Amino acid sequence: MPITMYDLAGAEADRRFSPFCWRARMALAHKGLAVETVPWRFTEKDRLPQPNQGRVPVIVDDGRVVHDSTAIADYLDDRYADRPSLFGDETARALTRFVQNWTETVLQTGLVRLVVLDIHRHSHPKDQSYFRSSREERFGTTLEEVVKDREARLPAFRASLDPLRRTVERQSFIAGKAPAYADYVVFGAFQWARAISDFELLAADDPVSAWRGRMLDLFDGLARRAPAYGG
Amino acid sequence: MPITMYDLAGAEADRRFSPFCWRARMALAHKGLAVETVPWRFTEKDRLPQPNQGRVPVIVDDGRVVHDSTAIADYLDDRYADRPSLFGDETARALTRFVQNWTETVLQTGLVRLVVLDIHRHSHPKDQSYFRSSREERFGTTLEEVVKDREARLPAFRASLDPLRRTVERQSFIAGKAPAYADYVVFGAFQWARAISDFELLAADDPVSAWRGRMLDLFDGLARRAPAYGG
Repeated sequence: MPITMYDLAGAEADRRFSPFCWRARMALAHKGLAVETVPWRFTEKDRLPQPNQGRVPVIVDDGRVVHDSTAIADYLDDRYADRPSLFGDETARALTRFVQNWTETVLQTGLVRLVVLDIHRHSHPKDQSYFRSSREERFGTTLEEVVKDREARLPAFRASLDPLRRTVERQSFIAGKAPAYADYVVFGAFQWARAISDFELLAADDPVSAWRGRMLDLFDGLARRAPAYGG
Repeated sequence: MPITMYDLAGAEADRRFSPFCWRARMALAHKGLAVETVPWRFTEKDRLPQPNQGRVPVIVDDGRVVHDSTAIADYLDDRYADRPSLFGDETARALTRFVQNWTETVLQTGLVRLVVLDIHRHSHPKDQSYFRSSREERFGTTLEEVVKDREARLPAFRASLDPLRRTVERQSFIAGKAPAYADYVVFGAFQWARAISDFELLAADDPVSAWRGRMLDLFDGLARRAPAYGG
């Protein structure tokens, strides 16, 4: 029986744009596990299986509910320990946390300030008012105000990718010769932007762009085939 | 026979302040290898054993010369594979590179702009003119100019540590339950500052400060016992 995954969807049911759901989606593919995704919107908190924290991803595996992308990755790696590891050894699992913390404090916080208005634009109509009010409260200003100088902030955003850039300049994946969960965490952020925005985040000759291309190719182009506005 | 390590020294022979040398020093201790350090100054390029790139650390192990801190770590881990690993598995080694690239593009570049004048002040008199001119050329301005607004830049520096902070808030070391080379790389930067500057980089209640304390305690306080101006 395939695993069920509740997956954030935009205006169209097949536009999937949660960075955390993309982490889980890539992790499932890495493990070679079949999945059926259920499109879910921000305002459908009651539709999630219990327990949950009102957010996705949530997976149901043979009746067992696991929520939170980090818990899902740990669960999959432990439950399906006979399949390719998402992490490597215990040291690698700990170091993956550093990459994740960089993604959440630097990459995703930088990205959201570039694309938040695009997210609003491509959210399902029934989500738009919730999305606008919750994000405007968080930013303390309007979504239009957040993104209005994004062209001017683009060089600083690109510079903030230096640790990633230097890494994938020297090795194919963040995790080395082959991709692992650290790659999926970082890639989730780019896939989020790509699904929802046509803003050019990366220069064409950026090594980060080449790495993103390698990620898009994985698993028969799983991420490349997903509906997207970005390149 | 102990390994010999050429180690950057300041005005006093026992003030050792190279972040790259501290990486190697901690790596040697992690491996339980005896070392005799040779104090070395920037302007003593001719005193280094061949081959070298005019920089330290350089080690000599039973006649074999290895230079560059990254090459030294790889050498030690391969040559002394029966001793505790510096990296963990191949995935962990690759992820260590990400931590190293973060250290070199974010942490060290932020730090040097806070402490470069202190480095000059505590360098050996015969190094000071070389140090000043090479660094002023790099920064395109005087050392005094580089550091003059450092108090104002301190909050941004501390914010740049968020990936590290969140990691060591949730686990004892960057590498997990026990320290590994990723910790030594990051710690080398703090030990550099500590050896040469009394500028308060971290708030006392910062989780990064607690982690630094754990690092200072390792190997019978190897790094804590070293001459320092910082806390």
